[in-house]
Amino acid sequence: MIGEVPNVEAGQEFSTRRLAHGAGVHRPLQAGICGTKKTGAESIVVSGGYKDDEDYGDVIVYTGHGGQDGANNQVSDQSLDDPGNAALVTSYLEGLPVRVLRGWQSDSPYAPATGYRYDGLYRVTSYGSKLGIDGFLVWQFRLEAYDDTPTPQVAQQPELPSALTEPSTVASPPTVEGNETPERITSTVQRIVRSSAVKRRVKAWHDNRCQICDLRIEVPGGSYSEGAHIQALGSPHNGPDTTGNVLCLCPNCHVMLDAGAIVLEDDLTVIRSGEADGTLRTHPRHVIDLECVRQHRERWRR
Amino acid sequence: MIGEVPNVEAGQEFSTRRLAHGAGVHRPLQAGICGTKKTGAESIVVSGGYKDDEDYGDVIVYTGHGGQDGANNQVSDQSLDDPGNAALVTSYLEGLPVRVLRGWQSDSPYAPATGYRYDGLYRVTSYGSKLGIDGFLVWQFRLEAYDDTPTPQVAQQPELPSALTEPSTVASPPTVEGNETPERITSTVQRIVRSSAVKRRVKAWHDNRCQICDLRIEVPGGSYSEGAHIQALGSPHNGPDTTGNVLCLCPNCHVMLDAGAIVLEDDLTVIRSGEADGTLRTHPRHVIDLECVRQHRERWRR
Repeated sequence: MIGEVPNVEAGQEFSTRRLAHGAGVHRPLQAGICGTKKTGAESIVVSGGYKDDEDYGDVIVYTGHGGQDGANNQVSDQSLDDPGNAALVTSYLEGLPVRVLRGWQSDSPYAPATGYRYDGLYRVTSYGSKLGIDGFLVWQFRLEAYDDTPTPQVAQQPELPSALTEPSTVASPPTVEGNETPERITSTVQRIVRSSAVKRRVKAWHDNRCQICDLRIEVPGGSYSEGAHIQALGSPHNGPDTTGNVLCLCPNCHVMLDAGAIVLEDDLTVIRSGEADGTLRTHPRHVIDLECVRQHRERWRR
Repeated sequence: MIGEVPNVEAGQEFSTRRLAHGAGVHRPLQAGICGTKKTGAESIVVSGGYKDDEDYGDVIVYTGHGGQDGANNQVSDQSLDDPGNAALVTSYLEGLPVRVLRGWQSDSPYAPATGYRYDGLYRVTSYGSKLGIDGFLVWQFRLEAYDDTPTPQVAQQPELPSALTEPSTVASPPTVEGNETPERITSTVQRIVRSSAVKRRVKAWHDNRCQICDLRIEVPGGSYSEGAHIQALGSPHNGPDTTGNVLCLCPNCHVMLDAGAIVLEDDLTVIRSGEADGTLRTHPRHVIDLECVRQHRERWRR
């Protein structure tokens, strides 16, 4: 289950992983990442197992899974083929929310003093690899709290190096190069919009290949497309949120459809800048709602 | 000036247009739309001059300018060449905020009883044309309040047709087809992200043409591109928000850059899926920050 689970609110504490498992917040008893490449990551646990982690409360730099010996040392490179890491890539590409648990073992100031605490929903806003502290490749995922996710409290005094004993340096992120802080930066997070269930179904039918230009954007760890409403939701258009009103498109064709640079004929001919340019690719299970096609075209009749 | 003006908060009332002009909220004394195609729309006034307008408080369906006689009847088609309408298209394409004033003349339940009220920032989330009530083409822009814009109060009892005398039908939007309402629908609003000043400068240098694939997305009323940070802002990447760290890209190349499907060499060769694929197009005033290029490439070294 992606998103909030019933009867659990941000801030709720669990004395053991088994209780968090029982509540459905984080189902595995050992793994830090719950999820698959197909579904995305349901939940993660921040519990100090990876020394490259950084925790700023609203922002977490979370190290992927793998490459460790039994004593939490990196002894080999991590890979995006790891199912947990692949799940976090899918969460990024699909804009899906990830439940975050913090555990007492973490030396983050935001960790609970004992047990585990559910801290609400975050989204993956970027990722990449670097040489970790132990000299092997680690993948790291930047997670940002949603605007309506409560900021976790500083629950414990962290062990600070002597040069950083001011309490004010704990609760707020450290300053980087004097004028930049790793706080929530909305300009990086809105590019990829959460896919609804309807959109995900259409994108799965077309395997992320654009129905107009046939492009499938391949990126390390996955592929990317967008679910695009033919006739926009909301007044004055009032398009329905149904698979018949959604297309699987690359971002470029999505922009052009939304702004009327592309319209469709009733026979699904693609009209680009006033001229016929191929036909919309379809799929046996994906029946296009021609009323939506007609209304969208009508909006751009000029 | 785009966005909030100093010393004016949402909810502030002005007894005349001249006072709203003096405060910088809406500068023209007569025109309903303030702005140009180049800058976008600074502000609009919702004051009942166009009978096709719809006002749901958080959502406004705003009719463009033009085509009227002296008595507010449409007597000819509207055009996107009208500077005010073109300004609203730019606001849509750039994701820019628009100040909204409501005037007493509007028969919207959200209009003030007298004078004018500044109601905060909205964004244009879709647009299109239709045959208006008077039988001529009108362009309409859907504006949605930002999440932190206060919802305007219902200030006057509207004149309702007899079939709709329940007060509850006034404050909330009417139901459409039994299950869809024209309320704020976030899935439609986040596709286009507000361009910062830094991004707008880079996009202007390149005239919205992608520096990687050379595409310029043309739509009715304008063209579209995105400002893309080479090295992402925020921890762990900490890229600077400077023109040297921003590229003008089409949405597809933006997705690929962000997810490491495209990286750049120090000589600005474009590496796509591991193979050289042309060179980044540059501009004399646009000096790329090679440290950002290097750090971004490092993230995807694998």
